[in-house]
Amino acid sequence: MPKPGQPLPLFGFFRRLLGQDRAFRQAIATLIGRTPDNIRLYQLAFTHSSVVRQQGEQARHQSNERLEFLGDAVLGTVVAEYLFRKYPYEQEGFLTEMRSRIVNRESLNGLALKLGLDKLVQLDATQGRSTRSRSVNGNALEALVGAVYLDQGYKAARKFVLSRLIKPFVDVKAMTQTTTNFKSKLIEWAQRHGKAIRYDLQGEARPGGVMEFTASVVLEDEVIATGMGLSKKQAEQLAAERALVALGV
Amino acid sequence: MPKPGQPLPLFGFFRRLLGQDRAFRQAIATLIGRTPDNIRLYQLAFTHSSVVRQQGEQARHQSNERLEFLGDAVLGTVVAEYLFRKYPYEQEGFLTEMRSRIVNRESLNGLALKLGLDKLVQLDATQGRSTRSRSVNGNALEALVGAVYLDQGYKAARKFVLSRLIKPFVDVKAMTQTTTNFKSKLIEWAQRHGKAIRYDLQGEARPGGVMEFTASVVLEDEVIATGMGLSKKQAEQLAAERALVALGV
Repeated sequence: MPKPGQPLPLFGFFRRLLGQDRAFRQAIATLIGRTPDNIRLYQLAFTHSSVVRQQGEQARHQSNERLEFLGDAVLGTVVAEYLFRKYPYEQEGFLTEMRSRIVNRESLNGLALKLGLDKLVQLDATQGRSTRSRSVNGNALEALVGAVYLDQGYKAARKFVLSRLIKPFVDVKAMTQTTTNFKSKLIEWAQRHGKAIRYDLQGEARPGGVMEFTASVVLEDEVIATGMGLSKKQAEQLAAERALVALGV
Repeated sequence: MPKPGQPLPLFGFFRRLLGQDRAFRQAIATLIGRTPDNIRLYQLAFTHSSVVRQQGEQARHQSNERLEFLGDAVLGTVVAEYLFRKYPYEQEGFLTEMRSRIVNRESLNGLALKLGLDKLVQLDATQGRSTRSRSVNGNALEALVGAVYLDQGYKAARKFVLSRLIKPFVDVKAMTQTTTNFKSKLIEWAQRHGKAIRYDLQGEARPGGVMEFTASVVLEDEVIATGMGLSKKQAEQLAAERALVALGV
């Protein structure tokens, strides 16, 4: 007989399992600000494809990649609406550019770390930390948004994105200020030196209906830099940034 | 005094205005399957930028471009969830590819015409029909989805997309079958001729966090065709299609 307070091994095993499950539930509830219903969705959101890859290519739908696809779309919609309402007089190009600044890979990876998602992500332990690309966390964040959407509905997912991601961690105003930085810096430089600057723009349709733009900065009839982007503004911005480098400004 | 039944000119003017307004309201109600609240949003959805451009660049936010940005995101989310649920065992690449087949420019333009949106779109009359690009209708459809979202909420927008666009007009099953066409056709050809075929893949991050893939079809160590796309599958698909052309199959 085990001593009092010392549980049977089997009971201990179950208790550990249940305890882990309870701790995970608790972590998710804290993270999303409400009690999850289908905890399986959240487990899936934190399952990196390396964990299931051992079981063959067929098992890959049991990783977070599908939820990431869904969450990426939900996140994009919530941020689109947020910007649409916040900037009623700005054009589509500005909204597109700002959204890509908020939800790009790097930004998502940073947000995921701020939420501590790296502690929840399940990776294949045999691979070691070195193979862990930084995008793993950002992808898990997108998958988490997808899980909240399926588990709690659009409104809850929207609330999660706005109140737990955008409002506490994203300085949208500062982002808009850096947006115009390079272009206005280049204009100032040109005015100071009495030179004529213009942008040449070309758009090309990419597969999937996405347009890709190429902007060239033309200084006194000579192309000095080009940039590409998914909006006109983004392409011009990048071209202006490169032109400033080329001019040594 | 005007004769009975012959209204005062001013009254007639207002009646015509109100009548037009009522007809537009009716058209929108029929289109979306529910009574619109904020009719202004729908008017905006059908206002092409050419109409407001005469009033200068500042007025451009009064065109449907901003709603199009929002509606594009909502549409992408609804279709993402639809595919996520319909194909529980398919991977993210498949879902991405299928979605881009459903919501690409060409497909949206076709859907817009099926709904008769071309009759509602307001263009600058002085420009004439010749300048009307085919995308005008597809863009208006996206803007309409954005208007329904803002006016009636996500659930209503989701219902509109599923019950008025996808289910009546999109043959998703047929689309999945053409998806694998080119790749499997190429494999069949290679097997028949005893040749070795493989794909080389390269991924490149584009601004905005989008990945762009380039796939090359390698036949007996020689690259015979390449294709680009926003998913691996899409890139390989296009490369396979071009390889078949190059091989004269």
